[in-house]
Amino acid sequence: MTNQEEKARRYALLKAQLSMARQQDKAVLLVVAGHAATYKSLLVNQLNHWLENRQTEVHALAPSEEDRLRPYWWRYWRRVPARGRVGVFVHGWYGDALFARAEHRIQAGAFEDRLNEINAFEATLAHDNVVVIKIWLDIDAEQQAKRLHAMQADPAQAWQINEHHWQRHAQHEVIDRHAGHLREATHAPHAPWHCIVSESPDQQLREITELLQDALTHPPTLPDQPALNHTQANAPTLKQSKSDDAKPPKSEYLEALAAAQARLAYHHRRCLERGIPVVLAFEGHDAAGKGGSIHRVTSALDARFYRVHSIAAPSDEERLQPWLWRFWRRLPQDGRVTIFDRTWYGRVLVERVEGFAEEQDWLRAYREINHFEAQLLAHGAVVGKFFLAISKEEQLKRFNARAKTPHKQHKLTDEDWRNRKRWSAYQSAIDDMLAHTHTPGAPWHVVNTDHKRCARLAVLDHVNHLLESRLESPS
Amino acid sequence: MTNQEEKARRYALLKAQLSMARQQDKAVLLVVAGHAATYKSLLVNQLNHWLENRQTEVHALAPSEEDRLRPYWWRYWRRVPARGRVGVFVHGWYGDALFARAEHRIQAGAFEDRLNEINAFEATLAHDNVVVIKIWLDIDAEQQAKRLHAMQADPAQAWQINEHHWQRHAQHEVIDRHAGHLREATHAPHAPWHCIVSESPDQQLREITELLQDALTHPPTLPDQPALNHTQANAPTLKQSKSDDAKPPKSEYLEALAAAQARLAYHHRRCLERGIPVVLAFEGHDAAGKGGSIHRVTSALDARFYRVHSIAAPSDEERLQPWLWRFWRRLPQDGRVTIFDRTWYGRVLVERVEGFAEEQDWLRAYREINHFEAQLLAHGAVVGKFFLAISKEEQLKRFNARAKTPHKQHKLTDEDWRNRKRWSAYQSAIDDMLAHTHTPGAPWHVVNTDHKRCARLAVLDHVNHLLESRLESPS
Repeated sequence: MTNQEEKARRYALLKAQLSMARQQDKAVLLVVAGHAATYKSLLVNQLNHWLENRQTEVHALAPSEEDRLRPYWWRYWRRVPARGRVGVFVHGWYGDALFARAEHRIQAGAFEDRLNEINAFEATLAHDNVVVIKIWLDIDAEQQAKRLHAMQADPAQAWQINEHHWQRHAQHEVIDRHAGHLREATHAPHAPWHCIVSESPDQQLREITELLQDALTHPPTLPDQPALNHTQANAPTLKQSKSDDAKPPKSEYLEALAAAQARLAYHHRRCLERGIPVVLAFEGHDAAGKGGSIHRVTSALDARFYRVHSIAAPSDEERLQPWLWRFWRRLPQDGRVTIFDRTWYGRVLVERVEGFAEEQDWLRAYREINHFEAQLLAHGAVVGKFFLAISKEEQLKRFNARAKTPHKQHKLTDEDWRNRKRWSAYQSAIDDMLAHTHTPGAPWHVVNTDHKRCARLAVLDHVNHLLESRLESPS
Repeated sequence: MTNQEEKARRYALLKAQLSMARQQDKAVLLVVAGHAATYKSLLVNQLNHWLENRQTEVHALAPSEEDRLRPYWWRYWRRVPARGRVGVFVHGWYGDALFARAEHRIQAGAFEDRLNEINAFEATLAHDNVVVIKIWLDIDAEQQAKRLHAMQADPAQAWQINEHHWQRHAQHEVIDRHAGHLREATHAPHAPWHCIVSESPDQQLREITELLQDALTHPPTLPDQPALNHTQANAPTLKQSKSDDAKPPKSEYLEALAAAQARLAYHHRRCLERGIPVVLAFEGHDAAGKGGSIHRVTSALDARFYRVHSIAAPSDEERLQPWLWRFWRRLPQDGRVTIFDRTWYGRVLVERVEGFAEEQDWLRAYREINHFEAQLLAHGAVVGKFFLAISKEEQLKRFNARAKTPHKQHKLTDEDWRNRKRWSAYQSAIDDMLAHTHTPGAPWHVVNTDHKRCARLAVLDHVNHLLESRLESPS
């Protein structure tokens, strides 16, 4: 590259990056992985030197304690670049999977599972305007040995070489084989691999800046819209939810409530001891009593170890991120309880019905949600999902009561009346949601709340049931 | 309390909290500290039960690794409740100070220093619409022993008692003495202590909800406006900043640059090894070349271990927090470098000149800033502050050059011309800033940038100098 050519390339790259930063229409996520001794650090540094570094983040992860106390993907979700920005990951999730496999810390099955997770993660990002590009820096074992020896002999570079480099050199063939499979299994038009044979830092930089220039200036490739996932067998429906329990008298209710809360308090302490995180998701019709039910649950919990998140419109920081980001960021650390009052299911309920999300986006969300919850389950979390249902008549009664009672008026908004007008649209959306996301690991629990006391007890009993099942299982 | 009275009190409390949540005009921060066996957990739980827990956060801190790798106050700044919310801290910063002192982990001098820090922290919060109230739960040693024995004997409560309780009982007199002094030293009208003798959970709850009700419904007490801190001796002024260096020819410049960057790269690695965090703050006139100077610094750093933050308008999440919050949240972990392109000094520059901050707020900021930087220094950080100055004539030249050069036009905005019109107002603000914040530990380095190459070298040399000084000092 002549000096003149280099200047022109740098300027073009910078211009493309600044244009993306202004438009905030997408983010670019670059993964740089590869064999040892392929000038990775040098390359990342040069690249960062070319880019506007106020809009760039480089991550070479040694997971922190806060990372380790959360589901695996949390550490990457919290570092996804916001739209307008470039995120560079050295090895990233590929390093985790590849070296775990090469060093026999995971077996073939777990490796495949992880590759599937990677595909799902990257597809979710790509659908949400994150352009993912992945570089594999290749070198053969002979060249690698030569380079390592040369670096070792050079006092200016020797400090960069440690036992890991030699270990990875010794494993070159194994790493190469698994890496080949990994690239094949995770290559996609929306998140392609580019294999670059490592010859010189300059040549690598040239090839990567070309790819980056491309990513910055071309419209992103969207993944194929996945087929709508199957309706889950035995999914509950709203129709089945009937209030036919005998209503217990108040004294009986209070007794049952106290007993259920005492059980919950006990289970909560055991979860804390064993580091089991608990995620409870509450959805429901307006005025179905989500707040009251949540309150009966939290009354049994130690205030230091739970958090209730009331989900409303995303903040402006959240708007620049993939839609699931704001739920990932709120996940509890191990042993804690997080309760969502309205949840990620807003995507397929209010966003669908009110048209805040495009059809293709909410259609895709069923799968994205199932994947999200599978991550929580894989980490050992308890996932409880409650839909608090109410009949149309009972809702009207409660709305009217709220309108008349001074200390309840703040609970009734124009939005409630607006939603009520679309009752049947919501009913369909709810039934679709139940049908597509009632998974074996994270089934829905639909609770009829026409009778509030029964509903609260039903919620508490089910939370207890979930914790008991989890606590009975090993680790 | 009769059932009726209790209901009325709960409703009034909830109403006050919801009104604050809607108005987002202030936050309430409650610290619950006290002797062992004063029903603290029970109290916090009951309180949380009365409050709307979607708007409440309870923190009983075991600092995480991410906390420990940052200046002490970071762990509390990141948990300050946003306006509209209630934050409850069990022991909080008082527990850290008190038990460290009682257990002789710190001596009297360090204890006093910490109490002063606490006062500064709480005053900063109080000025920024965080209402701080602090509860001390008191009990005498005899009662404490009785209660601990009773709890130990009760199977339902015994699990709550551990060796710490007995240890604190053994130290009752020492804790009591230090706690008395602590309360005296940190009591202020804007952050008062309330001593509550622990008789029964009910009585405690009643007294605290009264205090909370008060805090929620009354306008906050503002701290006294502190006296403007002294002008620092030897503070640089803009006038002194003259460009009279001989301009080195380009070849000499490139050589010097490469040498300085090599030194910096070496020092950066040593900081990384020793866990020394580095904070570099860049302010300067428009077109003085902040970006270019920062770029020459970052080119010498490992991209994995530094971050550049370009400070623009706060996000909406940031707007709900005290003004320094958005800088605290961006502090580097130990060993890393964070560079701010524009900084917290915006408070006394653009916010002052353009009237975005009230006079009393920016006047107070000098002290708040000095305190903020003192926290970084106390943690062992390197704090480098650069003001890149330019003459009015040279600025005009550069603006015109930018206007004419296609690939520089994006750098020139209407704001630049607006700021230029207020040149003399900015000059006064800059000189005041230099005079009031040129502290011994974090002095300003004013760099004349009429000659860009000299300026870049001067910045690099000074960064090297700062790192060298720090690396020479123990630990």
